[in-house]
Amino acid sequence: MSARYFEDLKAGDTFESETFDVPGKEIIEFAERFDPQKFHLHPQTAERSIFKGLVASGWHTAAITMRLFVRTLNFAEGAIGLGVDELRWPAAVRPNDVLRVKVEIVETRLSNSKPGFGVIRLRNVTTNQRGEVVQSMFAHALIPRRRN
Amino acid sequence: MSARYFEDLKAGDTFESETFDVPGKEIIEFAERFDPQKFHLHPQTAERSIFKGLVASGWHTAAITMRLFVRTLNFAEGAIGLGVDELRWPAAVRPNDVLRVKVEIVETRLSNSKPGFGVIRLRNVTTNQRGEVVQSMFAHALIPRRRN
Repeated sequence: MSARYFEDLKAGDTFESETFDVPGKEIIEFAERFDPQKFHLHPQTAERSIFKGLVASGWHTAAITMRLFVRTLNFAEGAIGLGVDELRWPAAVRPNDVLRVKVEIVETRLSNSKPGFGVIRLRNVTTNQRGEVVQSMFAHALIPRRRN
Repeated sequence: MSARYFEDLKAGDTFESETFDVPGKEIIEFAERFDPQKFHLHPQTAERSIFKGLVASGWHTAAITMRLFVRTLNFAEGAIGLGVDELRWPAAVRPNDVLRVKVEIVETRLSNSKPGFGVIRLRNVTTNQRGEVVQSMFAHALIPRRRN
């Protein structure tokens, strides 16, 4: 697949990522570093939490989603995140879940302030191996245009 | 500092975190795992990007913010993220930046669906050593109530 520029995308385009396996060990490692709460750290203690077992930090789910997004869209010169709205985690990610991301391009326009760039608005939906939505969000990003 | 429950917070409360140093090595490690784009990975290549130097993934900034938030609020039984809105990255995080987070509790209410919990809405603003805002967001979270 060749690398993409802004011109290669239009509203309505959809993409589906490869899958990503989430080992329990990685859930704990991420939490130790960034979200040290017991339901992300200790399988036994997590059993007694509202989650009834170990779950990944929502920020870990967001980071995995970014990985899948970047590899799927394969921008030639990157995607620069401008912001995210309506980031939601409707179901928890658990050890050995297998995640994938569906990307929908919602809007594309040229940047007003940066001549060499376009702005895309997109919706990312991350699901697990049972098709349950574990994360959804809208994002907008700055994407380099193809040089003439 | 004693651990907090929902009852210990009210709208208007503000908190300021400790600081967090961001080594360039960590920026690259996070990017290799979750956001493999050249301006997060390669200092030399990043010089030629729009950022004119290596910058952290926005999701890395978000994860560091979560760490500072969790350690500052010190919830007795954790904070369960429900969602995030208006997540913005107005300035990039660069190697050796020193970040801190200011938390403002915007609203508190009892949960309608979960009797043992309250819901807080908060604003998190992350700044660097020059006081520049590198991230801002609104979030809502489920917080356990104190047991009687």
